Amino acid sequence: MTTESFARLPQPPYYAVIFSSRRRPGDLGYQQMAERMVALAAGQPGFLGIESARGEDSFGITVSYWASEAAIAAWRIHAEHRIAQESGKADWYAHYEVRIACVERAYGKRA
Amino acid sequence: MTTESFARLPQPPYYAVIFSSRRRPGDLGYQQMAERMVALAAGQPGFLGIESARGEDSFGITVSYWASEAAIAAWRIHAEHRIAQESGKADWYAHYEVRIACVERAYGKRA
Repeated sequence: MTTESFARLPQPPYYAVIFSSRRRPGDLGYQQMAERMVALAAGQPGFLGIESARGEDSFGITVSYWASEAAIAAWRIHAEHRIAQESGKADWYAHYEVRIACVERAYGKRA
Repeated sequence: MTTESFARLPQPPYYAVIFSSRRRPGDLGYQQMAERMVALAAGQPGFLGIESARGEDSFGITVSYWASEAAIAAWRIHAEHRIAQESGKADWYAHYEVRIACVERAYGKRA
Protein backbone atom coordinates (compact mmCIF):
# COMPACT_ATOMS: atom_id res chain seq x y z
CA MET A 1 0.00 0.00 0.00
CA THR A 2 1.14 3.50 -0.71
CA THR A 3 -0.98 5.07 2.02
CA GLU A 4 0.51 6.46 5.22
CA SER A 5 0.47 3.99 8.12
CA PHE A 6 -1.52 6.13 10.55
CA ALA A 7 -5.04 7.24 9.70
CA ARG A 8 -5.77 10.93 10.22
CA LEU A 9 -9.11 10.89 11.96
CA PRO A 10 -11.56 13.49 13.23
CA GLN A 11 -12.59 13.69 16.87
CA PRO A 12 -14.76 10.77 18.03
CA PRO A 13 -17.40 9.49 17.81
CA TYR A 14 -16.89 7.49 14.61
CA TYR A 15 -16.97 3.81 13.69
CA ALA A 16 -14.24 1.18 13.32
CA VAL A 17 -14.27 -2.13 11.47
CA ILE A 18 -11.61 -4.33 13.03
CA PHE A 19 -10.67 -7.09 10.57
CA SER A 20 -8.34 -9.79 11.95
CA SER A 21 -7.17 -12.48 9.57
CA ARG A 22 -4.73 -15.25 8.89
CA ARG A 23 -3.63 -15.46 5.27
CA ARG A 24 -3.26 -18.69 3.39
CA PRO A 25 0.06 -19.28 1.61
CA GLY A 26 0.37 -17.87 -1.93
CA ASP A 27 -0.75 -14.57 -3.40
CA LEU A 28 -3.62 -15.68 -5.71
CA GLY A 29 -4.28 -12.08 -6.69
CA TYR A 30 -4.46 -10.90 -3.10
CA GLN A 31 -1.98 -8.01 -3.17
CA GLN A 32 -3.48 -6.41 -6.26
CA MET A 33 -7.02 -6.77 -4.93
CA ALA A 34 -6.06 -5.48 -1.48
CA GLU A 35 -4.60 -2.32 -2.98
CA ARG A 36 -7.64 -1.90 -5.21
CA MET A 37 -9.97 -2.29 -2.21
CA VAL A 38 -8.12 0.35 -0.18
CA ALA A 39 -8.35 2.78 -3.11
CA LEU A 40 -12.01 1.95 -3.67
CA ALA A 41 -12.90 2.24 0.04
CA ALA A 42 -11.16 5.62 0.21
CA GLY A 43 -13.62 6.93 -2.36
CA GLN A 44 -16.74 5.79 -0.49
CA PRO A 45 -19.00 8.22 1.36
CA GLY A 46 -18.14 8.28 5.06
CA PHE A 47 -14.69 6.70 4.73
CA LEU A 48 -12.32 8.25 7.27
CA GLY A 49 -9.13 6.20 7.09
CA ILE A 50 -7.49 2.77 7.31
CA GLU A 51 -4.57 1.19 9.16
CA SER A 52 -3.09 -2.22 8.51
CA ALA A 53 -0.34 -4.48 9.85
CA ARG A 54 0.59 -8.09 9.08
CA GLY A 55 3.42 -10.02 10.66
CA GLU A 56 5.62 -12.75 9.25
CA ASP A 57 3.34 -15.34 10.87
CA SER A 58 0.63 -14.38 8.31
CA PHE A 59 -1.66 -12.96 11.03
CA GLY A 60 -2.83 -9.42 10.30
CA ILE A 61 -5.12 -6.70 11.57
CA THR A 62 -6.73 -4.04 9.38
CA VAL A 63 -8.88 -1.34 10.96
CA SER A 64 -10.97 0.87 8.70
CA TYR A 65 -12.70 3.95 10.10
CA TRP A 66 -16.08 5.29 9.03
CA ALA A 67 -18.36 8.21 9.83
CA SER A 68 -21.45 6.08 10.43
CA GLU A 69 -22.87 2.57 10.51
CA ALA A 70 -24.72 3.38 7.30
CA ALA A 71 -21.39 4.03 5.55
CA ILE A 72 -20.09 0.65 6.75
CA ALA A 73 -23.25 -1.10 5.56
CA ALA A 74 -23.01 0.53 2.13
CA TRP A 75 -19.37 -0.49 1.73
CA ARG A 76 -20.13 -4.05 2.82
CA ILE A 77 -22.59 -4.52 -0.04
CA HIS A 78 -20.59 -2.59 -2.67
CA ALA A 79 -20.57 -4.81 -5.79
CA GLU A 80 -16.81 -4.92 -6.39
CA HIS A 81 -16.11 -5.31 -2.67
CA ARG A 82 -18.48 -8.28 -2.53
CA ILE A 83 -16.48 -10.02 -5.25
CA ALA A 84 -13.33 -9.44 -3.19
CA GLN A 85 -15.08 -10.78 -0.08
CA GLU A 86 -15.87 -14.00 -1.94
CA SER A 87 -12.22 -14.43 -2.97
CA GLY A 88 -11.27 -13.70 0.62
CA LYS A 89 -13.44 -16.52 1.90
CA ALA A 90 -12.47 -18.97 -0.86
CA ASP A 91 -8.78 -18.26 -1.45
CA TRP A 92 -7.00 -15.77 0.78
CA TYR A 93 -7.99 -16.25 4.40
CA ALA A 94 -7.75 -19.38 6.50
CA HIS A 95 -9.62 -17.55 9.26
CA TYR A 96 -10.99 -14.06 9.75
CA GLU A 97 -12.97 -12.18 12.39
CA VAL A 98 -14.81 -8.88 11.91
CA ARG A 99 -15.77 -6.60 14.79
CA ILE A 100 -17.77 -3.42 14.28
CA ALA A 101 -17.23 -0.85 17.00
CA CYS A 102 -18.07 2.73 17.86
CA VAL A 103 -14.95 4.70 18.82
CA GLU A 104 -15.76 6.85 21.83
CA ARG A 105 -12.38 8.29 22.83
CA ALA A 106 -8.97 8.70 21.22
CA TYR A 107 -5.54 10.06 22.10
CA GLY A 108 -2.01 9.66 20.87
CA LYS A 109 1.55 10.91 20.85
CA ARG A 110 3.94 11.64 18.06
CA ALA A 111 7.63 12.05 18.81
CA MET B 1 4.12 -14.07 22.38
CA THR B 2 2.98 -17.57 23.07
CA THR B 3 -0.73 -16.70 22.90
CA GLU B 4 -2.95 -17.76 20.02
CA SER B 5 -3.33 -15.08 17.34
CA PHE B 6 -7.13 -14.83 17.46
CA ALA B 7 -8.87 -13.77 20.64
CA ARG B 8 -11.80 -15.95 21.72
CA LEU B 9 -14.43 -13.42 22.62
CA PRO B 10 -17.97 -13.56 24.00
CA GLN B 11 -20.92 -12.11 22.12
CA PRO B 12 -20.91 -8.28 21.91
CA PRO B 13 -21.21 -5.79 23.45
CA TYR B 14 -17.71 -5.46 24.86
CA TYR B 15 -14.93 -2.90 24.59
CA ALA B 16 -11.83 -2.68 22.41
CA VAL B 17 -8.63 -0.68 22.86
CA ILE B 18 -7.08 -0.21 19.41
CA PHE B 19 -3.38 0.63 19.83
CA SER B 20 -1.57 1.60 16.62
CA SER B 21 2.14 2.28 16.84
CA ARG B 22 5.38 2.70 15.00
CA ARG B 23 8.38 1.22 16.81
CA ARG B 24 11.72 2.94 17.04
CA PRO B 25 14.76 0.88 16.00
CA GLY B 26 16.34 -1.29 18.70
CA ASP B 27 14.79 -3.50 21.36
CA LEU B 28 15.62 -1.56 24.56
CA GLY B 29 13.77 -4.11 26.66
CA TYR B 30 10.65 -3.94 24.52
CA GLN B 31 10.09 -7.61 23.74
CA GLN B 32 10.42 -8.74 27.34
CA MET B 33 8.14 -5.96 28.59
CA ALA B 34 5.57 -6.59 25.86
CA GLU B 35 5.31 -10.24 26.83
CA ARG B 36 5.10 -9.31 30.51
CA MET B 37 2.31 -6.81 29.77
CA VAL B 38 0.27 -9.38 27.84
CA ALA B 39 0.58 -11.84 30.72
CA LEU B 40 -0.25 -9.14 33.27
CA ALA B 41 -3.24 -7.84 31.27
CA ALA B 42 -4.58 -11.37 30.94
CA GLY B 43 -4.86 -11.57 34.72
CA GLN B 44 -6.82 -8.32 35.09
CA PRO B 45 -10.55 -8.29 35.89
CA GLY B 46 -12.58 -7.86 32.72
CA PHE B 47 -9.79 -8.83 30.29
CA LEU B 48 -11.29 -10.76 27.36
CA GLY B 49 -8.46 -11.19 24.87
CA ILE B 50 -5.77 -9.58 22.75
CA GLU B 51 -4.65 -9.65 19.11
CA SER B 52 -1.48 -8.15 17.70
CA ALA B 53 0.30 -7.77 14.37
CA ARG B 54 3.41 -5.83 13.34
CA GLY B 55 4.87 -5.67 9.86
CA GLU B 56 8.46 -5.34 8.72
CA ASP B 57 7.91 -1.59 8.34
CA SER B 58 7.72 -1.36 12.19
CA PHE B 59 4.05 -0.31 12.11
CA GLY B 60 1.84 -2.45 14.34
CA ILE B 61 -1.69 -2.76 15.64
CA THR B 62 -2.63 -4.36 18.96
CA VAL B 63 -6.28 -4.66 19.94
CA SER B 64 -7.13 -5.66 23.50
CA TYR B 65 -10.69 -6.56 24.43
CA TRP B 66 -12.38 -5.80 27.75
CA ALA B 67 -15.71 -6.40 29.42
CA SER B 68 -16.25 -2.77 30.44
CA GLU B 69 -14.84 0.73 30.34
CA ALA B 70 -14.11 0.39 34.05
CA ALA B 71 -11.83 -2.57 33.31
CA ILE B 72 -9.95 -0.50 30.72
CA ALA B 73 -9.60 2.40 33.14
CA ALA B 74 -8.26 0.12 35.88
CA TRP B 75 -5.68 -1.43 33.52
CA ARG B 76 -4.60 1.98 32.30
CA ILE B 77 -3.59 3.07 35.80
CA HIS B 78 -2.12 -0.29 36.89
CA ALA B 79 1.22 0.53 38.49
CA GLU B 80 3.44 -1.83 36.48
CA HIS B 81 1.58 -0.97 33.28
CA ARG B 82 2.19 2.73 33.91
CA ILE B 83 5.93 2.10 34.08
CA ALA B 84 5.70 0.30 30.74
CA GLN B 85 3.71 3.20 29.28
CA GLU B 86 6.49 5.60 30.27
CA SER B 87 9.09 3.44 28.53
CA GLY B 88 6.78 3.27 25.54
CA LYS B 89 6.67 7.04 25.30
CA ALA B 90 10.36 7.55 25.97
CA ASP B 91 12.04 4.63 24.21
CA TRP B 92 9.90 2.29 22.12
CA TYR B 93 7.39 4.21 20.04
CA ALA B 94 8.03 6.99 17.55
CA HIS B 95 4.27 7.48 17.29
CA TYR B 96 1.21 5.83 18.76
CA GLU B 97 -2.54 6.32 18.67
CA VAL B 98 -5.07 4.82 21.08
CA ARG B 99 -8.77 4.48 20.27
CA ILE B 100 -11.30 3.17 22.78
CA ALA B 101 -14.36 1.64 21.17
CA CYS B 102 -17.48 -0.31 22.04
CA VAL B 103 -17.84 -3.42 19.88
CA GLU B 104 -21.47 -3.74 18.83
CA ARG B 105 -21.42 -6.61 16.31
CA ALA B 106 -19.04 -9.39 15.37
CA TYR B 107 -18.85 -12.25 12.89
CA GLY B 108 -16.19 -14.44 11.35
CA LYS B 109 -15.27 -17.51 9.40
CA ARG B 110 -12.78 -20.27 10.02
CA ALA B 111 -11.83 -22.58 7.17
